[in-house]
Amino acid sequence: MPRLTEAQKSERHERILAGARRCFARYGYEGATVVRLEEEIGLSRGAIFNWFPSKQELFIALATRDNERLLVLFAEEGIEALITAMTEDDPDWLAVYLEFGRRLKGDADLRERWKSIAPVDARQRSRGWIEAGQKAKRLRDDISADDIGRFLGVLLDGIAVQRALGFDSPAPEVLHRLARAALRPPSRSGNPQKRSPAA
Amino acid sequence: MPRLTEAQKSERHERILAGARRCFARYGYEGATVVRLEEEIGLSRGAIFNWFPSKQELFIALATRDNERLLVLFAEEGIEALITAMTEDDPDWLAVYLEFGRRLKGDADLRERWKSIAPVDARQRSRGWIEAGQKAKRLRDDISADDIGRFLGVLLDGIAVQRALGFDSPAPEVLHRLARAALRPPSRSGNPQKRSPAA
Repeated sequence: MPRLTEAQKSERHERILAGARRCFARYGYEGATVVRLEEEIGLSRGAIFNWFPSKQELFIALATRDNERLLVLFAEEGIEALITAMTEDDPDWLAVYLEFGRRLKGDADLRERWKSIAPVDARQRSRGWIEAGQKAKRLRDDISADDIGRFLGVLLDGIAVQRALGFDSPAPEVLHRLARAALRPPSRSGNPQKRSPAA
Repeated sequence: MPRLTEAQKSERHERILAGARRCFARYGYEGATVVRLEEEIGLSRGAIFNWFPSKQELFIALATRDNERLLVLFAEEGIEALITAMTEDDPDWLAVYLEFGRRLKGDADLRERWKSIAPVDARQRSRGWIEAGQKAKRLRDDISADDIGRFLGVLLDGIAVQRALGFDSPAPEVLHRLARAALRPPSRSGNPQKRSPAA
C-alpha cells in the first residue's frame, strides 16, 4: 500500500467519518454492521479500522465533533443558535444517540469518557459565555453557571428525544422565548434595577 | 381452571403489571424475555398473555398508567410537582422508555397510538390547568396552551434522558425556578400591569 500524504490522510479521515455518520443514521447503531460501514464508506474494514479501533470509537469520534460544533456555536452565538441547531439536526442521527445511550447506562467508565468528549477549550469557552452573560446581567446569576449549563443540557436532550422519535417539539422561536425568559435576571422588565442588584 | 372473582381478576391484573414493570426496569425492554417475565410475575406465560396479548401491549399498559398519573398530578398540583416526579422516577425504568422509543421511530401507527395513550379526560384536565393558569395570569398567554404543554414535554423528556443515562440534571428546586420564570407572564415583577395586559 503506498504511503498517504498528509492531505490524503486528512481526506481519508473525513471520508470515513462522513460515511460512518450516514451509515449510523440510516441503519441505527446496532444495525451499522461492518459490511454496511464498508459499503457506505467505500473502504475495506482494514482501512477503516486502521483509523478507528472499533465501531464504538468511530461513533465517539462523531459525537466529539458534534459536541465541539455545538459548544463553539454556543460560545460564539449564544443559546438561541444552540437551540435552533438542535431543532434542525437530522432526526435519524439523533436517534443513534438514544440508541448509544443504553451503553452508557451500565458502564461507568464509558460514561465518564462520554462526559469528557467535549474538548476542554470549547467547554471553557461555553462556560465563559455563561459567566460573561451573568456579569453583564444578560443571564441570571442567582443560579450557578453550572446549573444553567445543565438546564440547557436538559432542554437540548429533550428536543433531541422528541425529534428522534418523530414528535413535534415547539417551534424554535417559541423555545427561544421560553429559554430567554427562564434565564434572564429576575429583576428585569419595567424597572430593571428595582428588585435586586444581586447583592 | 377455576373462575376468578372480580376481586381476584383485579388483583391478578395488578400483579402482572407490577411484575412486568420490575422485569422491564431490571432487564430492559429487549432483555425482558417471556421466561424472565414469568419469573418476575410468578405466573405462566399463558396466564400473563391471557391478559395482555403481547409484551408490547404490556409495556403500553404500563406507560398509559404512568402518563395518567403524571397528567393527574399536573392537573392537581401543577408544573413543579410534575418536574419533581420526573426527577424521582426510577432511572432504570426511564431507560426502558428510551429503548422502547426506537420502535416508535419507524412505525407511524405505533407512534399515533403512543400519542393517544394518555386518557382523554386526564389530557383535558391538564390542558384545562394550563388555560386556567393563563386566564388567571399565572401563566403567560402570549404562547399557546399547546406550546406550553409541548415545552413541558421537552423539559420532562430531557430530565428523563439524563436520568436514564446516569447524568446529573439540575436539582428539582433549580428546575422549578427556571420553569416558573419561563412560563410566567412577561409583564410581572415590580409593576405587574405595566407592560402589557396582553392586547
